[in-house]
Amino acid sequence: MFGYTAPIRDMRFVMREIVDIEGLSQLPGCDAATPDTVDAILEEAGKLAGGVIAPLNRTGDQTGSKVENGVVRTPEGWREAYRQFVDGGWNSIPFEPEFGGQGLPITVASACAEMWNSANMAWGLCPLLTIGAVEALTAHGSDAQKQTYLEKLVSGEWTGTMCLTEPQAGSDLALLRTKAVKQDDGTYAITGTKIFITYGEHDLTENIVHLVLARTPDAPAGVKGISLFIVPKFLVNADGTLGQRNDLRCASLEHKLGIHGSPTAVMQFGDGGGATGYLIGEENRGLQYMFTMMNNARLNVGIQGYAIAERAYQQALAYAQERRQGRAAGAEGAAPLIMHPDVRRNLMLMKSQTEAARALGLYTAAMIDRARHTEDADARRQAQRRVEVMIPIVKGWSTDLGFELASTGVQIHGGMGYVEETGAAQHLRDARICLIYEGTNGIQAMDLVGRKLSMDNGQSIKALVAEMGAAADALKAVEGDDAATIAAALAEAVAAADDATDWLIARAGSDAQSVLSGATAYARLMGTVAGGWMMAISAAAAIRGLSEGADDAAFLEAKLITARFYAEQVLPLAAGLARTVKAGSASIMALSPEQFAA
Amino acid sequence: MFGYTAPIRDMRFVMREIVDIEGLSQLPGCDAATPDTVDAILEEAGKLAGGVIAPLNRTGDQTGSKVENGVVRTPEGWREAYRQFVDGGWNSIPFEPEFGGQGLPITVASACAEMWNSANMAWGLCPLLTIGAVEALTAHGSDAQKQTYLEKLVSGEWTGTMCLTEPQAGSDLALLRTKAVKQDDGTYAITGTKIFITYGEHDLTENIVHLVLARTPDAPAGVKGISLFIVPKFLVNADGTLGQRNDLRCASLEHKLGIHGSPTAVMQFGDGGGATGYLIGEENRGLQYMFTMMNNARLNVGIQGYAIAERAYQQALAYAQERRQGRAAGAEGAAPLIMHPDVRRNLMLMKSQTEAARALGLYTAAMIDRARHTEDADARRQAQRRVEVMIPIVKGWSTDLGFELASTGVQIHGGMGYVEETGAAQHLRDARICLIYEGTNGIQAMDLVGRKLSMDNGQSIKALVAEMGAAADALKAVEGDDAATIAAALAEAVAAADDATDWLIARAGSDAQSVLSGATAYARLMGTVAGGWMMAISAAAAIRGLSEGADDAAFLEAKLITARFYAEQVLPLAAGLARTVKAGSASIMALSPEQFAA
Repeated sequence: MFGYTAPIRDMRFVMREIVDIEGLSQLPGCDAATPDTVDAILEEAGKLAGGVIAPLNRTGDQTGSKVENGVVRTPEGWREAYRQFVDGGWNSIPFEPEFGGQGLPITVASACAEMWNSANMAWGLCPLLTIGAVEALTAHGSDAQKQTYLEKLVSGEWTGTMCLTEPQAGSDLALLRTKAVKQDDGTYAITGTKIFITYGEHDLTENIVHLVLARTPDAPAGVKGISLFIVPKFLVNADGTLGQRNDLRCASLEHKLGIHGSPTAVMQFGDGGGATGYLIGEENRGLQYMFTMMNNARLNVGIQGYAIAERAYQQALAYAQERRQGRAAGAEGAAPLIMHPDVRRNLMLMKSQTEAARALGLYTAAMIDRARHTEDADARRQAQRRVEVMIPIVKGWSTDLGFELASTGVQIHGGMGYVEETGAAQHLRDARICLIYEGTNGIQAMDLVGRKLSMDNGQSIKALVAEMGAAADALKAVEGDDAATIAAALAEAVAAADDATDWLIARAGSDAQSVLSGATAYARLMGTVAGGWMMAISAAAAIRGLSEGADDAAFLEAKLITARFYAEQVLPLAAGLARTVKAGSASIMALSPEQFAA
Repeated sequence: MFGYTAPIRDMRFVMREIVDIEGLSQLPGCDAATPDTVDAILEEAGKLAGGVIAPLNRTGDQTGSKVENGVVRTPEGWREAYRQFVDGGWNSIPFEPEFGGQGLPITVASACAEMWNSANMAWGLCPLLTIGAVEALTAHGSDAQKQTYLEKLVSGEWTGTMCLTEPQAGSDLALLRTKAVKQDDGTYAITGTKIFITYGEHDLTENIVHLVLARTPDAPAGVKGISLFIVPKFLVNADGTLGQRNDLRCASLEHKLGIHGSPTAVMQFGDGGGATGYLIGEENRGLQYMFTMMNNARLNVGIQGYAIAERAYQQALAYAQERRQGRAAGAEGAAPLIMHPDVRRNLMLMKSQTEAARALGLYTAAMIDRARHTEDADARRQAQRRVEVMIPIVKGWSTDLGFELASTGVQIHGGMGYVEETGAAQHLRDARICLIYEGTNGIQAMDLVGRKLSMDNGQSIKALVAEMGAAADALKAVEGDDAATIAAALAEAVAAADDATDWLIARAGSDAQSVLSGATAYARLMGTVAGGWMMAISAAAAIRGLSEGADDAAFLEAKLITARFYAEQVLPLAAGLARTVKAGSASIMALSPEQFAA
């Protein structure tokens, strides 16, 4: 009941039909990612995820990470699993070969990331955080800094953190207070308290490289006065060995709703006078540097959303096939739950939306790769714009789904779903954080209707909507009732998205309250329609494969039916979402604070 | 931050404008419930809930109820609170004066029930379960049984349980195995295991009266062979004192996602040879007897849904008013969260849907009172039919909302919402059970499209839809933009509900798979529209009150805006739900079990 089998067949389908992994592997720097190699990587990653990491999920939740006198102990077995992960080279997949990386596309790393997070989200957070540190150093670190830290971070021998949040500064980094005072030797003395630091302290590796946002004494107020520092747990000697313990410590761990295995630390910097920090790049440009790793980090959280939905789905499916209750057509005696239409609808909601979100996640990952590696500069720019648009959609929509579908998984279990020993409730608890960290889904939605919609007068979003409409048109030309149904549903949903987009563009400069009031509904609308777009492309590919007599007919038939289910049961909600966007801000903003009280 | 203030002003509004408490108090047997008396009761209940019960919610969650050697210890302070509750006569509100009850309408008890459950849902479950035992005994017990048990249960000196579920029999009671063998003295020897028994064992009272479903040896198979027994923890002597300990024990307590304070027991009956049980009514009619208390029990769980939403709302509102992050129009420096449109939209989603659900819950409670007390037999029958239709809607929709809005409350807290000490996460965990117990929401939806839709060829549901449409028409005749907007939105949503209803009626006898496939979406549709109906009536009353220069103008304005918000942000989703109902079963039922696997 607690097992996990990586959905490799579906990943391969997405790689082939959505991502065009063949085409991707022909870009300069992506040549290692031939379809065969990618297949082999997915296969091996699936073994590690299912065989080693997944079995630690339940016990990790029960035990949790523990802190005593600043020393954090991760749950039993986590060190060994992490060791296997590092030894197998899994941490280094997407990084540059110069520092030991395998130079594989983000797309491949993203498929693997789904597996780690399906297997054990609390565990998977550790490598996820290291990615950000590698990216920040690669992009903005000095040669000496790269030399000192990158190889160990790329391999996973050391891990990284992101120290942003402070008690008074969550979504609003302008309120940061952590101080950085330049010393005579060019280093900085860092003092302050950081909270919600994921894997801020742990026992998986010898060293931890904290990336810390802080202010120098004379820095401008607000976000323009934030600098980014490397603050290692142990200072690193010139020969690469570990030196002195830095002046930082884990003051406590949070007691959280979920991801109990992941140590979420309150980090105290400089209690002894100041932790030694090394400036990355220039002073006061810290937030800008953070932005360079934000897209990938947000994509990774989006991936966590559907990763947990996949795990919850597998568990609910197993239960629905085994548990017998009530009569159903076609069953003698008490029927397996899966034979009841209402349960089956729930399973299809899980299956179809998880597959749609996976397709969109890998599509977006591939767009990041294309934005980096495509030779034509104009095409690169276009790809980058598509990435900018997709990131808040994927982060918000996938994580909303992750939580909703984990809840659906609990529901399929009935009373057993509410009992912790079943494990379904853990997925629900774990999934809930994804809507919050790396920018709450409200922040994502505001980013979408704000920065992303206005960056080019809405043209990047209009281009996306047009492309989704073209996919509906293309499917209309395909024969058969399934294609016609899916195409019609997508066309209608796209029209709603187009309408809402125009409405927002028309108000972008003049009516910020209305634009912001519609943000969350619009983001959900765009995610819903984009998922339908992915399923329409998938349906077209399935029809093509079936007509060509492909081997895996049962899989392709299932894909086609799943796409039709999405068209019939999910896309019809798009029109209503568009209308709520267009309702504007009047009834949202009218009450006085006193009138909110009961 | 953890406080609770009963929303008495809104309750009074609902009593006056939705329930017509004045009219209700003129029915025979309801004369105690004059508006003034009801006001006073709500006021006093609010004090007990906010001052005594609410402060125990957080600590109850942290400690939980504990079991040792079959003895259950509830969290600190719970005994004292329960004692005050009983001493104040709160347990006896809706029961017959003959056995010490206050003979007040279910409507009044329901308003109080919201308060107990907002204050502390895990605690509130205890009196909630006792209600069922009182009702079953009142309706089906012998005179001697009533004499022995009712007074103590009515006062709350003893509590009651419902022992239905067994490991193999959850939603499907046909699979029950607990045995009842008739003894020479006319009692029955009960043996078997019951699970998920709420307050199956506790230290709040001296005795616990278990109502147990079991089978006699020669009973017919399935649900027609189930009998209902009284199985007290302590046998009761002829003089009313407690006698011998019965042969039953709490084997363990479940470790649950939420409601930690509520002891959910595995109950072992007859390990020592057989627990003494007393047959209620006749053999093999147990399920029928259970049905007589089912409506009220399901209503009470629906009430828990919006009760927890109200509590989550109050907590999120307090946080949103206090916490400052980011810039917002009209604020200098960092703005309180409540000034951000996206946060405010979330608060309005909580406020509007909670108020709509409260109105519908009390409307339904009043309909139960009317079905019992109205003099005209035909009007009683009509009221009863309305009750039958509303119960699955209220139970499913309110509890779906309770969970969703508790999640919205977490989201408003950002990262702090994910940390347990904040308390927002507890509401989410507690709320989740309401979608499952007293019949899962899937079961409710199937009841609605099955038994309730077919009981009179759909006419009861059609009558409800017509009445909702008439409310839209009536509001159209009212002057002003708010009335017009709300009326138009409701009319359109009602049309969608009518359409979906006709579609289901047309398939009721011929296409069970399609009817069942649409069940959950239809139930959600009906809840959404019925909520809009309540808000439309509320809006009309608010407009009337404002035009008449009522005292509480700020409240009435808020009500009108809140109704408009519901019309603009919630009702537009109805049309899409109707379309998913009408999509039928094809894509839901097509996959083979193997095709579900990844």
